[in-house]
Amino acid sequence: MKSLVCSRCKRNYDYRKVVNLCEDCTSPLLVEYDLQHLRRTWDRDILAKRSRNMWRYRELLPVSNSEEVITLGEGGTPIRHLNRFGACKGLDRLSMMDEGLNPTGTFKSRGASAGITRAHSLGIRRIAMPTAGNAGGAWAAYAASAGIRLLVAMPEDAPEINRRECHMYGADVRLVKGLISDCGQLVEEKVAEEGYFNGATLKEPYRIEGKKTLGLEIAEHGEWTWPDVIVYPTGGGVGLIGIWKAVKELAALGWTTGRFPKMVAVQMEGCAPIVEAFQRKATQSVFWERAQTKAGGLRVPKALGDFLVLEALYESKGTAVAVSDDAAGQMMKELARIEGHLICPEGAAGLAAIVDLRNRGWLSSEESILLLNTGSGMKYSEWMM
Amino acid sequence: MKSLVCSRCKRNYDYRKVVNLCEDCTSPLLVEYDLQHLRRTWDRDILAKRSRNMWRYRELLPVSNSEEVITLGEGGTPIRHLNRFGACKGLDRLSMMDEGLNPTGTFKSRGASAGITRAHSLGIRRIAMPTAGNAGGAWAAYAASAGIRLLVAMPEDAPEINRRECHMYGADVRLVKGLISDCGQLVEEKVAEEGYFNGATLKEPYRIEGKKTLGLEIAEHGEWTWPDVIVYPTGGGVGLIGIWKAVKELAALGWTTGRFPKMVAVQMEGCAPIVEAFQRKATQSVFWERAQTKAGGLRVPKALGDFLVLEALYESKGTAVAVSDDAAGQMMKELARIEGHLICPEGAAGLAAIVDLRNRGWLSSEESILLLNTGSGMKYSEWMM
Repeated sequence: MKSLVCSRCKRNYDYRKVVNLCEDCTSPLLVEYDLQHLRRTWDRDILAKRSRNMWRYRELLPVSNSEEVITLGEGGTPIRHLNRFGACKGLDRLSMMDEGLNPTGTFKSRGASAGITRAHSLGIRRIAMPTAGNAGGAWAAYAASAGIRLLVAMPEDAPEINRRECHMYGADVRLVKGLISDCGQLVEEKVAEEGYFNGATLKEPYRIEGKKTLGLEIAEHGEWTWPDVIVYPTGGGVGLIGIWKAVKELAALGWTTGRFPKMVAVQMEGCAPIVEAFQRKATQSVFWERAQTKAGGLRVPKALGDFLVLEALYESKGTAVAVSDDAAGQMMKELARIEGHLICPEGAAGLAAIVDLRNRGWLSSEESILLLNTGSGMKYSEWMM
Repeated sequence: MKSLVCSRCKRNYDYRKVVNLCEDCTSPLLVEYDLQHLRRTWDRDILAKRSRNMWRYRELLPVSNSEEVITLGEGGTPIRHLNRFGACKGLDRLSMMDEGLNPTGTFKSRGASAGITRAHSLGIRRIAMPTAGNAGGAWAAYAASAGIRLLVAMPEDAPEINRRECHMYGADVRLVKGLISDCGQLVEEKVAEEGYFNGATLKEPYRIEGKKTLGLEIAEHGEWTWPDVIVYPTGGGVGLIGIWKAVKELAALGWTTGRFPKMVAVQMEGCAPIVEAFQRKATQSVFWERAQTKAGGLRVPKALGDFLVLEALYESKGTAVAVSDDAAGQMMKELARIEGHLICPEGAAGLAAIVDLRNRGWLSSEESILLLNTGSGMKYSEWMM
C-alpha cells in the first residue's frame, strides 16, 4: 500500500491511520498501491504455488504480512459454464462465478475478510455497520474470528436467516424499522456517541479491496484476458467498483492483454437508482423513494459510490438494466431445473437481465458473458416456491 | 471397475448391469477395482495437474471416461485448523473438513454426483429415494443436471429448506408421516409398481464411491498419511464406510504410509443404534424404537450398512459415542463464536463427542483429530437461537 486517496478530490491520507471518508468532500477513500514497484518486483507466475483463496493476491491487498490475515477460506470460487441454459437462450458462451461457495454463503465474505483484517491490524476493537443482511452475517463471522465486537443494524424485515446467523456469531443485532439507509442513521449515532468504528460500505475503505479479488480471479481464470461482458447485480455497487479497480490495476501491472470487459449493472424495477441515472447519462444517482423489492441485497435507494459505478459503466461502454422480482424468481427456478444450480435472487436478476439484453440485441450469441452470482440460493428459502 | 461384490457373502455381479442389493443375502454391493493393475499404471503425481474436485481421483471412481461425469463442482472442500477452539478444550491438533462448501451445502453432493453419474451411464431415467432431507436436495440437483426424473420421499417434519430446494430442482417430493424408514416403504412401492430405480442409501451401490472421496482427500491433504483419529457423525454411515474403503484401497495401491486412522462414530442419545451395538460388541445393530433427535441426518433407526460401520470401528480400534441434542446445539454456537464457522448440528455433535472423549481421556491433547462437518449451518436456521 502507498496511501489512501479520495475517489473524488484525490486528497491523500496515511493508510496507517484510522479513517473513514474524505475530510474535505466526504467521498470514499480508495487504497493506492505502488504499482510501478510491483510491476518490477512481482511476477504472476508466483501464483501457481499459492492456495486458491483471495489472499493469493496479497501484494494487491491491504496487508503487510500474511500473519495479519483474518481468513475463513474465502474466494477461489468456481466459474461454471451454463451450457444448457445458454443454449436455450441463444447464448453460446455464458458462465457464472458462483460466490455461493464462500464460507458465509455469499460474496460478502471477501469484503469482510479484507475489512476485518485491516481493522484488526489497526487495533480497532468495536465496529458498527448497517446491512441488508448478508454483509452482516459475513462481518459477524470474521469479527468473531478476529475477536472484534460487532454491532449490526438491519431492517426489521431482513431475512430471518441473516438475523440468526449474526446472533450465532455473537454479534449485537439491532433491528430497524425502515431501509438500510435508516440503519445507517443508527450506526452514525453509535459511532458519534459510543466510539464504534463505522464499518458501512465505502465509509470503510478496505472491504472494496476484498471485492476487487472478484476481478483478479476472473482475469486469472481467463488466463489474463477478460470476458467480453461482466454482469453484476448492483446494490451498493462495491463489487462492480472493485472489479473495475482490478481491471485498472492489472493493466498497470501489464498482466492482462486484450480488451477491457463491458460492465453491466443490474437492479430491480422497484429500486433502480443507478439504471435511472445511467439512462439520463448522469454522473450521480438520485435517492429512490419508496424502494421496494424482495431482493434485499438490491434494496439500496442511494449508493455512496454511485458515481464510481456510473463511471465504470460509461468508461467500459457497458449498460444498466432493471428487471422485475418476478423475472428474477422465474430465472432462479429455471436455472435450478436446467443446470442444478440454486442461485440467489440477486444473481437470478442478473440472469434475467442477460436474457433481456440478448433479446434486445445488446448481447450477441458469441460474446463471452460472465454473471456474478453473489450468493447461495440456500439463504433464500422465502424465494423457493 | 472390475465388478460389484456383495459386502457379506462376496458374490460377484457385473457392474454393467443395473442392480441393487445382493440377490442371495440382500446385503449392499460394493465396487471392486483392479487395484493390482492400478498400482502398476497409476501414479499419484498425476493429481498435481488436476482440478480440486472429487473427480480428480477418477481412476478409483465408477466412470470409464471423464465425459460421463455429472458434476456441479463437488469435493475439494477445505480442511480448517480449529486452533482457538482446540486450545480451549485441550486439543492441540484439531481440524475440521468443511463439507458445507459443497454445491448443495452438504457432503451429500459427493454421493449424488457418483450415484447420478453412474445411473446416467447405465441409462436409468427415473429414480426414487427416501431421505432425511439433505440427500434429497443433493440428488435433486444432480438429477436436474443429468435430466433424470427424481421422486423424493421425505418425513413430513423434514426441514422446510430441504422440501423447498427439492421443489426448486424440479423433483417430485412426497411427504411421509414417519421416519426415513417409513419413507423407504413408499419408495419400495414405487419401485415395485412403477419401475423406478431404487436410489436408497446402500441399495444403490455407487454413492458410497462418492463418499469414499472424503477419505481420498483427507489422505492427500495429509501428504498420504492419516490423522490419528477421524470423527464421523453417523446416520446411515455411508461416509464412514466410504472413508474406510479409501483407507484399504490406498493401502493396496501403496500410496499411504504410517498407521490407519481410528474411526469414531457419533450418534445422538435419542437414536444411537450403532453406539448401543458397539457397547455390547455386536456385529449388527438393533432397530431403535421411537428414534428422536432434532438432527435429521442422524435420525436413522437402523442402517443397512450397520455391520460395515461396526467392522470399521472394531478394525480401526475406534469407538462410538452418543451425545445430546443440547450438547450439539451448544457446540454449534461455541464454534461460531470462537472460530467464525457455522457448522451443521450433525457436525456439532461430532465436536461434542470430541470434547467428551478428551475429557474422558480417550483422546489425548497431541493426537491429530479430524472432524467431518457434514454440512453448512446455513441450512439449519431452526438450530440458531
